Amino acid sequence: MGRQTDLTCAAARAAALELMSSAGRFVLCGHERPDGDCAGAQAALASVLESLGKAVWIVNPDPLPSGLEHLTKTRRFEVLRGAELPPHDVAVLLDFSEPGRCGPLAGPLLAAASRKLVVDHHPCAHQPWWDAAYIDPGAAATGLLVHRIARELGARLDAAGALGVFTALASDTGWFRYSNTDAEALSVAAELVAGGLDPAGLYRQMYQRAGRERPLGIARALARLDYLAAGRLAVVDLPLPDAEEADLPEGDEVLDLLRAVESVEVALFLRETRSGSVHLSARAKGGCDVLGLARRFGGGGHSKASGATLPGPLVAARDAVVAAALEELGGRQGHTA
Amino acid sequence: MGRQTDLTCAAARAAALELMSSAGRFVLCGHERPDGDCAGAQAALASVLESLGKAVWIVNPDPLPSGLEHLTKTRRFEVLRGAELPPHDVAVLLDFSEPGRCGPLAGPLLAAASRKLVVDHHPCAHQPWWDAAYIDPGAAATGLLVHRIARELGARLDAAGALGVFTALASDTGWFRYSNTDAEALSVAAELVAGGLDPAGLYRQMYQRAGRERPLGIARALARLDYLAAGRLAVVDLPLPDAEEADLPEGDEVLDLLRAVESVEVALFLRETRSGSVHLSARAKGGCDVLGLARRFGGGGHSKASGATLPGPLVAARDAVVAAALEELGGRQGHTA
Repeated sequence: MGRQTDLTCAAARAAALELMSSAGRFVLCGHERPDGDCAGAQAALASVLESLGKAVWIVNPDPLPSGLEHLTKTRRFEVLRGAELPPHDVAVLLDFSEPGRCGPLAGPLLAAASRKLVVDHHPCAHQPWWDAAYIDPGAAATGLLVHRIARELGARLDAAGALGVFTALASDTGWFRYSNTDAEALSVAAELVAGGLDPAGLYRQMYQRAGRERPLGIARALARLDYLAAGRLAVVDLPLPDAEEADLPEGDEVLDLLRAVESVEVALFLRETRSGSVHLSARAKGGCDVLGLARRFGGGGHSKASGATLPGPLVAARDAVVAAALEELGGRQGHTA
Repeated sequence: MGRQTDLTCAAARAAALELMSSAGRFVLCGHERPDGDCAGAQAALASVLESLGKAVWIVNPDPLPSGLEHLTKTRRFEVLRGAELPPHDVAVLLDFSEPGRCGPLAGPLLAAASRKLVVDHHPCAHQPWWDAAYIDPGAAATGLLVHRIARELGARLDAAGALGVFTALASDTGWFRYSNTDAEALSVAAELVAGGLDPAGLYRQMYQRAGRERPLGIARALARLDYLAAGRLAVVDLPLPDAEEADLPEGDEVLDLLRAVESVEVALFLRETRSGSVHLSARAKGGCDVLGLARRFGGGGHSKASGATLPGPLVAARDAVVAAALEELGGRQGHTA
């Protein structure tokens, strides 16, 4: 990154901080199917802004998924689908930058006279349309950006804010296992634990609340495993009713087990849904990338973890995704090729 | 802990540091079935001592398990079963304090005229028999004690030493998920990553080298799951040939999936071995403890993770362990009882 860009970024972030310091009423808006980084960043930024005397509302187009209930104990997460937003001066888009990603909230968001602030760590392909932005694609999580914002604004993170930052960090780094885990992520985690946060207790709340049927659901999914491309591609497709009964929200349990196989570079998990569409979760390791794959089917995410929703039936969706994945793997030399 | 004990401990540690500073030739001895904390601590202490100009040998009664190959790239781990130890001034017992725990190495170790130093983080029930000790049951890993020793001796950890400390930490905290994960563990991890260590690359080397048959092995194991005590106890018993073909070294993949079920407080995994004995791995979460359970069958470990080897047949071993586990759970009020 050139010096000019660095300066622009620093200047842009300063403007974002100035907007947060000066305005009074904030709506913190999350994306569709909000995840731990999105909701954790919302909880954390709400704490930061309230500690500065601001009024804050958290709104999302969808309810929080299972595993994030701990965030709702001290904080209200409102679900709005197109209704008017509460009166506010600044709308903050947290963990996304394209208004379309907040689905039915995009209309009210763009219609409101408020200034628009983006706080995000995703790579951004489109032209800036916002009033201010605090963006760093090098940050492990959007929650880490909120931690930086707190420090730069001289705000104290209370216990709920600390829980938000740790939840965000742990979610997007796969509990410090993924390649975005860096010294800043671990050092902030250490600081939060030194401040009283209980990481094992949080792990339990996030990842150890499964129903009794989940292990058998995982077994059923794994029994459908196919290896392709000399074991570089692992594919599991799960039809109804197993796909629904298995209690596998994002499929990470299954995908982690597939990625544990040494030869596997890309793991795909396709599940039939009751609406007839098919949900794809894709994961990569090593030098591979699955963001391009998800984008081919209208989805998104990160280079190592992405997702998309495809039209059914399952077998057609599987064929299309596998063909695309093989094409992408073919473009990359295999380790053993 | 009273002040007197604190002072004694500090004095004991100072004596241990003095012994490491003054002696010249060290044998670093690990326990039977050395794990990531044991072998990582050996690699790290070897780096520390060599940076101070000492001669160092690493010896173990068993070879390193799969997942620790990265440690052997820069360091020789010798397997000795009763043969004479190389000439040395100090024998260091790393990650254990009872000589019996190093099996066939115990004889030569005790017969040698060397001074004996224990570096360990396990709770120790017996009387001190050693010449010096650096013990802290409050430390997340023995590798963390080596990190403290490096700092206190003013020694620099090289890349191999850093890899040893991180391997030790990551092993014994379950990659920062278990209840022993504290601010020191995360802060040392952050320091090592800032120094150049690649955590995702290490994760891949430790946990993503499974064979292609493992996912199906996990599926077969999960299919044998039983819940007892209203779901507080989860039990999987795996007979041959699945137990051997499943490629599940310590069974952690299966046990982690069982612990992810909200109601489960204790998870047991029993595997038949070719010798006819049965290997037990036990895991606890929340307020439960499985160290007592493993000790009943001549095993050991930690409060949340323990193991033992029982005589077969599998069904008899299972009955005995389940009865003991139910007894221990019965003595503890259930969350919903």
